Amino acid sequence: MADNAGKEIDRLIDLMAKLPGLGPRSARRAVLQLIKKRSVLLEPLSQAMAEVAVTARECVTCGNVGTSEVCGICSDPKRDDSLICVVGDVADLWAMERASVFKGRYHVLGGVLSALDGVGPEELRIPLLARRVSEGGVREVVLALNATIDGQTTAHYIADQLEGSGAVVTSLAQGVPIGGELDYLDDGTITAALKARKTF
Amino acid sequence: MADNAGKEIDRLIDLMAKLPGLGPRSARRAVLQLIKKRSVLLEPLSQAMAEVAVTARECVTCGNVGTSEVCGICSDPKRDDSLICVVGDVADLWAMERASVFKGRYHVLGGVLSALDGVGPEELRIPLLARRVSEGGVREVVLALNATIDGQTTAHYIADQLEGSGAVVTSLAQGVPIGGELDYLDDGTITAALKARKTF
Repeated sequence: MADNAGKEIDRLIDLMAKLPGLGPRSARRAVLQLIKKRSVLLEPLSQAMAEVAVTARECVTCGNVGTSEVCGICSDPKRDDSLICVVGDVADLWAMERASVFKGRYHVLGGVLSALDGVGPEELRIPLLARRVSEGGVREVVLALNATIDGQTTAHYIADQLEGSGAVVTSLAQGVPIGGELDYLDDGTITAALKARKTF
Repeated sequence: MADNAGKEIDRLIDLMAKLPGLGPRSARRAVLQLIKKRSVLLEPLSQAMAEVAVTARECVTCGNVGTSEVCGICSDPKRDDSLICVVGDVADLWAMERASVFKGRYHVLGGVLSALDGVGPEELRIPLLARRVSEGGVREVVLALNATIDGQTTAHYIADQLEGSGAVVTSLAQGVPIGGELDYLDDGTITAALKARKTF
């Protein structure tokens, strides 16, 4: 890696290169930047990581990542208990929250079903979802899963599991993304958008 | 950023987003990954950063980043003392070292002259270089500066400063990069490569 830079620095570069989005080259650049900005970046970052390592935990109800046993969303009294949005990962939950449009609760599966990767329902938080819905009070379950094959397989599986639970199962609409140009869209999206066309 | 994720996690995301190569989105992804891999990535990384924050220092001779007062390159008895390679940044030194072809010593300027950014010779380690060369024993100074306007201005300035010092000042060859396709090269590179053409 970085010859003669000292084993502590080499080790830091190796670890940084394991982060998603960083390769060996950008890890080296990041480490040099960290060393240059020792007091404003390196030390605070080290400390922030140590704090998160101690405080971060999974919400027992929805699976969101937070710093308390029940996350801020699950404990917010202003949210609608009768509406549950099912997402694959915490990153998807955060993406939904940035849109600031959903005012119900969440349920994070922790992945999607995948025959290839050997991920079955028991590996995900699907049984927990079924139990949560069966406890009653849930009017609608919105499936906000990725529009990939695995995502849609998971959606179908969950819809089957929730049949007879009394909750309506819905899913995000598929179609042309806002700002999307038809010329750049794949055939599948155009087909879905045409099939789901609405009166203008 | 990430609503309701807890202030420790938000703070970590904010800090991670300040690293070169990471934006807010990749910082969020990185932090989720860190939390998932708490014991194999988050904790070791926090500790590695704390160690580097304590141990990293600038080599008093060449300006390289390392963990001792004199860096591994400057203290290596097998290297040629009479040859000094001048680079702008530590990242450039590391790039030279990865090529494993240079067996002399280095001198890191800590940047390049820039009228726009207000970087003059005194902000860089140019006076230190002049002193190092004037102490004698240096046969050749290789200028390995970026082929940008600021890089080349700096090279000319250093060459002027070292005039009469007894050391020969050379610079890296400019031309077609290995694996480079003419069609994709800029005019400046092709012009430089043609002017510096050699007998085949």
